[in-house]
Amino acid sequence: MYNFEYKNPVKIIFGKGTIAKLTGEVPSGTKIMMTYGGGSIFKNGVYDQVKKALEGFDVVEFGGIEANPTYETCMKALEVVKKEQTGFLLAVGGGSVLDGTKFIAAAALYEHGDPWKILSGEEKAPVTRALPIGTVLTLPATGSEMNGNSVISRTSTQEKMSFGSAAVMPRFSILDPETVFTLPDRQVANGVVDAFVHVMEQYLTFPVNAPLQDRMAEAILQTLIEEGPKVLANRTDYEAAANFMWSATMALNGLIGVGVPQDWATHGIGHELTAYHGIDHARTLAIVLPGLMNIRRREKEAKILQYGERIWGITDGTPDARIDQTIARTTGFFEQMGIPTTLSEYGVTDSTIGKIENRFARRNTLMGENKDIDSRLTRTILTDRL
Amino acid sequence: MYNFEYKNPVKIIFGKGTIAKLTGEVPSGTKIMMTYGGGSIFKNGVYDQVKKALEGFDVVEFGGIEANPTYETCMKALEVVKKEQTGFLLAVGGGSVLDGTKFIAAAALYEHGDPWKILSGEEKAPVTRALPIGTVLTLPATGSEMNGNSVISRTSTQEKMSFGSAAVMPRFSILDPETVFTLPDRQVANGVVDAFVHVMEQYLTFPVNAPLQDRMAEAILQTLIEEGPKVLANRTDYEAAANFMWSATMALNGLIGVGVPQDWATHGIGHELTAYHGIDHARTLAIVLPGLMNIRRREKEAKILQYGERIWGITDGTPDARIDQTIARTTGFFEQMGIPTTLSEYGVTDSTIGKIENRFARRNTLMGENKDIDSRLTRTILTDRL
Repeated sequence: MYNFEYKNPVKIIFGKGTIAKLTGEVPSGTKIMMTYGGGSIFKNGVYDQVKKALEGFDVVEFGGIEANPTYETCMKALEVVKKEQTGFLLAVGGGSVLDGTKFIAAAALYEHGDPWKILSGEEKAPVTRALPIGTVLTLPATGSEMNGNSVISRTSTQEKMSFGSAAVMPRFSILDPETVFTLPDRQVANGVVDAFVHVMEQYLTFPVNAPLQDRMAEAILQTLIEEGPKVLANRTDYEAAANFMWSATMALNGLIGVGVPQDWATHGIGHELTAYHGIDHARTLAIVLPGLMNIRRREKEAKILQYGERIWGITDGTPDARIDQTIARTTGFFEQMGIPTTLSEYGVTDSTIGKIENRFARRNTLMGENKDIDSRLTRTILTDRL
Repeated sequence: MYNFEYKNPVKIIFGKGTIAKLTGEVPSGTKIMMTYGGGSIFKNGVYDQVKKALEGFDVVEFGGIEANPTYETCMKALEVVKKEQTGFLLAVGGGSVLDGTKFIAAAALYEHGDPWKILSGEEKAPVTRALPIGTVLTLPATGSEMNGNSVISRTSTQEKMSFGSAAVMPRFSILDPETVFTLPDRQVANGVVDAFVHVMEQYLTFPVNAPLQDRMAEAILQTLIEEGPKVLANRTDYEAAANFMWSATMALNGLIGVGVPQDWATHGIGHELTAYHGIDHARTLAIVLPGLMNIRRREKEAKILQYGERIWGITDGTPDARIDQTIARTTGFFEQMGIPTTLSEYGVTDSTIGKIENRFARRNTLMGENKDIDSRLTRTILTDRL
């Protein structure tokens, strides 16, 4: 096991009817900006529950944070924050609303010029301060409710970039599994696959003798495999929704990643597919991961075999045969959730692969647990998924 | 799954050579009281490492916090805190030093009279404030380094009582697995069994459809079963020490217990064996747990069978035969660690059982996940272990 530091002070309030607890969690004496997305919270009753809990508080609203939240939208929100002098941000929505709100919170107190520097390039200046945030999660997927990560897109340049800072960890996050009841199939499927790949990024690398982290990662994978299809089949199965929701949070609150190598190349490559084609984040992961497993089968052999055996019960055959079966089972699970896993199913051709290769070459991108996945290897991985 | 709230802001600093990081974690500008136990930190070099990291800080020392830390000793420490006006407590040691220091920290700011009220009886007044604490852990076992729990004994009345408060969660805890290298067999064995039973208290109850919590609990149990004997056999196996240390912390930082019923009767009964006979805490748990499993086999049937199958691979026979085998394997593991599991091996007779029964009857004690383990059932459980 590697040395590590871990601190996660997010207060989780989990369960049925917990949105009403907002009243005791948001600060009084400061104006609150409530952020949300495209309006699903008006249809599922969450907006009304939140507004009821916030009666008597000074609240301004900022709606319209889109999936793959953009720098452009966040900068508009920042104007409202400054004009209204809001001292607390309450994000109500899924990972996109939460990520966007984290960026707004950091940008509001950023002292190094254009907030785009938070996300990009050599000038990246670390975020040490941010407005305090609380969240009401309506879509289990990204884990953003219990970490300090945020991913932001820039429409004008077709870029998708990320930052992480303890300063943007939510003070509290309210997770009511009943919010899952009204999600469309597509968002359930995306959420399950997103959480699944978050675990894989922290697990499917090389062994460093960290058996507890391995088993906790496997615990989440197994639970997502069991509960995901239940949620898809019966949206009002509260127990399945709750298990899915808690698994998605645990998948990316930092705990399974302590003391072990991490990959994140699937995300790095996937972000480009979203940037160029607008493909849903989780779907890009479902495309890339099988290619990464296939092309990096030697480097990841020990962990792929362990994953295949413990999660899918694959124990027979040569290592390569077992790896093939394991990739097929993984792809099969994504497809079972209704998610296509090849580029051609999304209309992506070799020309996009070329653009991504060029961009990574220009940026000297090196990804993966060994920092050896470069532009050329990215081409190989994506070509495997055509 | 039940509704739950979870917040654990303890900063964990884990790994080889991390004691030096104290310098950046303790506050400057206030006097620090460094607490420790019987002096093992002088033999294993930890004292020197801590003092070196604290060079330039204003430090007063309080040594001599005993195993099963007493109210009497803590009250002496409290006098030093008041006289020296210390603003930060640094606990260097195992669970006893940490628990004692938590009580001192709470007592220092307690406003309801005699601090014994923090621990006892109807007048128990909640702890909402405490001096800030940091810890350097030298003995993996209790999990005290990442929770707000503390257990204190009172010599004069042969009582052992506990309290819990978020106010006494450490600001940081430094976990260097190399501190395990110099532990005697007895403390390694105790630590492994203590952590094991902490998991069982949160796991071996009844199913509430919380598969992730179950699997995470099983992950810790399995890791302790694998790594515990390795540590016992080779004290300088760093990897085994690290895996043991992290498992013990994860066993009682609250995470596996969210949203599920909890038992804690083994601890409740075990504390009485320590109070009356001074038996090491972990050893009392190794005595009581098999009795509890045997006597509560119907109430706990589903979870005992799951535990037997997933941890010990027991799948054949009638439920009762499988439960018998599962109890035998559990007891066998404790004995493999060198810990006797029957009362007679510790010279405890029926007369002590009578005393415990009477005390619980007087207190109207009701324990366990169903709050139905009373004084009479306690007699039955202990008699099973004579």
